[in-house]
Amino acid sequence: MNGQIFKPQSKWTSGLDDIIISSRIRLARNIKGFPFPQRLNSRRAKEILDIGEQAVAYLSQKTKHLYSFYRLQELDQQKKGVLLEKHLISPPLLASELPTAVAVREDEAVAIMFNEEDHLRIQCFLPAGQLAEAWRLANKVDDILSEKITYAFDDKLGYLTACPTNIGTGLRASLMVHLPGLVIIKQAAPLFDSMPRLGLTVRGIYGEKTQGLGNLFQISNQVTLGQNEEEIINKLNSVVDQVVKQEKESRKKLQENYTNELYDSICRSYGILANARTISSEEMMEQMSLLRLGLDMGVIIGITAKDINELMLAGQPNFINESCSKIFNPSQRDWERAKLIRKKLRSIRVGEE
Amino acid sequence: MNGQIFKPQSKWTSGLDDIIISSRIRLARNIKGFPFPQRLNSRRAKEILDIGEQAVAYLSQKTKHLYSFYRLQELDQQKKGVLLEKHLISPPLLASELPTAVAVREDEAVAIMFNEEDHLRIQCFLPAGQLAEAWRLANKVDDILSEKITYAFDDKLGYLTACPTNIGTGLRASLMVHLPGLVIIKQAAPLFDSMPRLGLTVRGIYGEKTQGLGNLFQISNQVTLGQNEEEIINKLNSVVDQVVKQEKESRKKLQENYTNELYDSICRSYGILANARTISSEEMMEQMSLLRLGLDMGVIIGITAKDINELMLAGQPNFINESCSKIFNPSQRDWERAKLIRKKLRSIRVGEE
Repeated sequence: MNGQIFKPQSKWTSGLDDIIISSRIRLARNIKGFPFPQRLNSRRAKEILDIGEQAVAYLSQKTKHLYSFYRLQELDQQKKGVLLEKHLISPPLLASELPTAVAVREDEAVAIMFNEEDHLRIQCFLPAGQLAEAWRLANKVDDILSEKITYAFDDKLGYLTACPTNIGTGLRASLMVHLPGLVIIKQAAPLFDSMPRLGLTVRGIYGEKTQGLGNLFQISNQVTLGQNEEEIINKLNSVVDQVVKQEKESRKKLQENYTNELYDSICRSYGILANARTISSEEMMEQMSLLRLGLDMGVIIGITAKDINELMLAGQPNFINESCSKIFNPSQRDWERAKLIRKKLRSIRVGEE
Repeated sequence: MNGQIFKPQSKWTSGLDDIIISSRIRLARNIKGFPFPQRLNSRRAKEILDIGEQAVAYLSQKTKHLYSFYRLQELDQQKKGVLLEKHLISPPLLASELPTAVAVREDEAVAIMFNEEDHLRIQCFLPAGQLAEAWRLANKVDDILSEKITYAFDDKLGYLTACPTNIGTGLRASLMVHLPGLVIIKQAAPLFDSMPRLGLTVRGIYGEKTQGLGNLFQISNQVTLGQNEEEIINKLNSVVDQVVKQEKESRKKLQENYTNELYDSICRSYGILANARTISSEEMMEQMSLLRLGLDMGVIIGITAKDINELMLAGQPNFINESCSKIFNPSQRDWERAKLIRKKLRSIRVGEE
């Protein structure tokens, strides 16, 4: 087992941009001759894992990249939780009662889930704003896998998927963005309200339930049918370009009109993170958002957006258990989280006015 | 003018106790042949200041202590504010339209107000729990002054005072106590409710309006008639002994049942004080109460109760204006206050668990 996968570094966390955190492409694919997962029995699901494992071995050989193939039934709860916290697997994959698996490239830029909603979900993750690059990577992986796997494909409809919203290209493109400025000036909600009309959807860093947590949002396309991949990616990119522009304007506005208040909030967040003895993951996310904003404003020195991404991961519940090789109760975990944060923030300085 | 008086050190701030901050004795005296101040005209009020100044000169000579005699009408608003924040003068003295004055001993253990509610109010301030010592000092000052001043005195009633509650000994004894433990476990209010029955009264650090601010309380006797000085002082001491005992028990209880929460709160207060860029005097008082509690618990290292007393004074509005030789608006003052606190807390460390 590749130990690296349980460390809080991932390809997507390595970005240095403090607005666009990461880019993600997901392709939904199914194997011809098998029922969709919701109608699959355990025996046939296992056959898919076997086919998948062989195809991934071929992919590995062709691309000179190391892939680890994890059958989820063989992992304990915490390790599965870590994969989820890293975004390498999804909540439905974790919840599935079928034999499921995920194949992860050594740098975690590629993670292929088996027997989630579709037989295959090819995911590519890159740091910062690199949707087109992520798409090229996904495309390449898809091409190589298709040499070994016969996909369910219809000449008129395109790739067949379990859910009709994915039919066609089976593509979902997402950008994770950090929008504290728009949230503070209360312009995030109206902006997001306009997204469905553009065929886009907005979720929190860990799905619907975490909407707004840490001022992080995932913006993705909603439908795939009737649009080609380039159209989807270009549209998402151009909308997010607008969002980034507005975020920058809102930060500028805040700096002009509320310099002291903003400076104070950032410094207080640093003070709390660097000194608290117990901290929930929600509060960590909130305070780190201000730290990240402080980076952009030059108030916080000695840490990068990459460090913050990694610390955010390292502070997630399963990561804490995994890194301490213990299963903590929530209050113990809040204590360990605070300890971890204090340690990681030792290098930080606050710029003096 | 004695410059020391505008520095945030005073005799009463020099205590190292983190429950009983300071002790204060006040004697109300009036001069025979003059109406009480509420019926005094400006000319006669000035006569009292002249008598007072001569008597203080005699006191100075007899005790080998330097006294400064400040006529309030000659001081600007900020300097008067500083005297108030140091407790050397009272709000009524500041508000009076008569010629008023205060004579202050060089170590600020003695401050005599002229033309407050009574012609003379002899105040003695000592650090920590030293009521009896403060009383002895006040008594000595009173004796010496009486060699030069003929007090209004009635053989049956004792010293005559403007307000009947002060008739008799004219003595008010007060202890300033810090009770965060009782406040946190919500036992302070019921305790204070029982005080009037014991003939005692509880106020905030700067009077009624500041009740509970920074978990600091002044406990004093309410009436003086029919009791001698020793009775008053002994009763106050014995009640406050009980309060101190209960405060210690409540801290012990908190440490046993909420160690982590308490430790976390103290460390967060430190983190905020050491990093905030803008802070109101109210928040300063609140956060410093936790810092003071942290001293007692050994969590906060590198600072003493004396340092905290002085910082608390230095952070008061008039002190900030005075020390920067400027008249700031409230938001500028909050900025300067945060700057001052950060500077003073540099030496502090937080003990690691």
